[in-house]
Amino acid sequence: MTQSNTVNRKLILAQRPVGAPDDATLRLETDAIPEPAEGQMLLRTVYLSLDPYMRGRMSDAKSYAEPVAIGGTMIGGTVARVVKSNVKGFEVGDWVLSFNGWQDYALSDGTMVTNMGKNPEAPSWALGVLGMPGLTAYAGLLKIGDPKPGETVVVAAATGAVGSQVGQIAKIKGARAVGIASGAEKCAYAVDELGFDACIDRFADDFAEQLAANCPAGIDVYFENVGGAVFKAVLPLLNANARIPLCGLIAMYNATQAPEGPDMSGALMSTFLVKKIKVQGFIVFDDFGHVYPEFSADMMAWIKEGKIKYREHLVEGLENAPSAFLDLLEGRNFGKMVIKVAEH
Amino acid sequence: MTQSNTVNRKLILAQRPVGAPDDATLRLETDAIPEPAEGQMLLRTVYLSLDPYMRGRMSDAKSYAEPVAIGGTMIGGTVARVVKSNVKGFEVGDWVLSFNGWQDYALSDGTMVTNMGKNPEAPSWALGVLGMPGLTAYAGLLKIGDPKPGETVVVAAATGAVGSQVGQIAKIKGARAVGIASGAEKCAYAVDELGFDACIDRFADDFAEQLAANCPAGIDVYFENVGGAVFKAVLPLLNANARIPLCGLIAMYNATQAPEGPDMSGALMSTFLVKKIKVQGFIVFDDFGHVYPEFSADMMAWIKEGKIKYREHLVEGLENAPSAFLDLLEGRNFGKMVIKVAEH
Repeated sequence: MTQSNTVNRKLILAQRPVGAPDDATLRLETDAIPEPAEGQMLLRTVYLSLDPYMRGRMSDAKSYAEPVAIGGTMIGGTVARVVKSNVKGFEVGDWVLSFNGWQDYALSDGTMVTNMGKNPEAPSWALGVLGMPGLTAYAGLLKIGDPKPGETVVVAAATGAVGSQVGQIAKIKGARAVGIASGAEKCAYAVDELGFDACIDRFADDFAEQLAANCPAGIDVYFENVGGAVFKAVLPLLNANARIPLCGLIAMYNATQAPEGPDMSGALMSTFLVKKIKVQGFIVFDDFGHVYPEFSADMMAWIKEGKIKYREHLVEGLENAPSAFLDLLEGRNFGKMVIKVAEH
Repeated sequence: MTQSNTVNRKLILAQRPVGAPDDATLRLETDAIPEPAEGQMLLRTVYLSLDPYMRGRMSDAKSYAEPVAIGGTMIGGTVARVVKSNVKGFEVGDWVLSFNGWQDYALSDGTMVTNMGKNPEAPSWALGVLGMPGLTAYAGLLKIGDPKPGETVVVAAATGAVGSQVGQIAKIKGARAVGIASGAEKCAYAVDELGFDACIDRFADDFAEQLAANCPAGIDVYFENVGGAVFKAVLPLLNANARIPLCGLIAMYNATQAPEGPDMSGALMSTFLVKKIKVQGFIVFDDFGHVYPEFSADMMAWIKEGKIKYREHLVEGLENAPSAFLDLLEGRNFGKMVIKVAEH
């Protein structure tokens, strides 16, 4: 079943996952396509962004954002087209960056919706390199990490939506970029295409040794988006006055309990102390929304100059979003994960 | 045996402590008073500062500073007088802020020695409110914690050299100051004399509940100098975008192994992430030496205006330094711990 102009398909949260999401987590339902009232418009989803933060919204653990309600439509950033419009400034056929969620159609009053015009170049990029993940990489790396020329920047998920930009921006700023990725193919891509100085396969038996060998002068900035075993290998390599922009902890998102002891939380604080490390958690639009104009200008210029490359992992069909999301959490994507919900 | 002008008493590191230092850790020895060569001066210790960081120098675990060698004299900040001088700018009788260590006499070429003149007011204050601990409080609180008027600042060891200044400076900046201290007498002092809004006895059975009750709007800045149980009680109260200047972890300094599990280090990072918390370790003279002039001017003014109060815990006699140091690590001091090594 593909997108139609008669029903609205949507993925609703059927139950909160314990551990990894499974077949019982989300349910595909259909209902009528809603009619826009005065001051509303109807949007049709073309691209749906899948991002690790969505795992958090499936849980009701206290977090920075409200969880999705049971029976509610999964939230998510989308690139969509205007189908009907009673909103000034939006015409039928316009492309928009919106927050439709995991469904074919959504109503909007225009709040937080960006009009991309009638004929944008590479519209789906607004979900990645030119959107939230790009800003996350840019602001986290430059405003918290602040890498100096010659310093070493390490980032995991190095071919992903955020990690790939962290490494490339680090290079633009004159730093050494060392990536971590899943498997040889991605590592080769990070070095050969994205220009990382090195990229280590996180599945290698001697992963920690390889990481150390490729950071001979230690690590000055660790852009944290994974946690777990990668962080464990990074920690002893951190230099004095290292900075850790703390953006995500994907390795932990499906964890159901804390790992067995001993409790190393005190030792972790002790390391931050003796090495004078700065750790700063951030949620990009809460903390760095004001950086968007600067980011946008820089990123557009860098793309034009060929300094920034971008790769999407496109999956066709809204019905495939749940399994694609699992792939994302496990690092089986190769590039920014985007669901192509419909033809243009 | 008191200070003489014939021998030099010194406390040397006899063996590295496992857990808390004990009688076998330090040994009192005597040797000849050294003669200053050309370009040197002889300094006589009047006051010796005891500070928690010294526990770290007794260990050879990797840290930000070299450990004291076995057989070496324990290091430490001192207020001393010039006995003989072959150094330009220093005359016999001058008071100096120096780094003689735990001994009666030391040679110096003037490097890192501050001349305090012939007749300083309250010379020992250079070891506390006007010196390293004061700068630690000032720079950590203002440059990392950056409290805004109306925000809540929490600090432990609230009557100690650093904590007492953190709370008072927080008040000067318009924030709410909540202290934590050992026992009712110190808590009363923190509130009645130092002007904290509240001070919780860390030995109270319902310590965590009391802390929560006294931080009704959560915690915006936690000045971390203790770790352990206090940090555990603070963590759930931290607000979004809280700041943690990480200055010390005295509760852990005598620990011989990590506590039993589960391993909460990942959960800790997760809290930093979802609450967008900034944690920053610092070593005051490494990171904030440049703040000294600003600190000094502000602090002098505040003392004159009666906005800053200061209390010393004076212990007489160099031979009592080892037991006083244990008292300091256990929080049995009441005010800045200073050994009065000699009469002026």
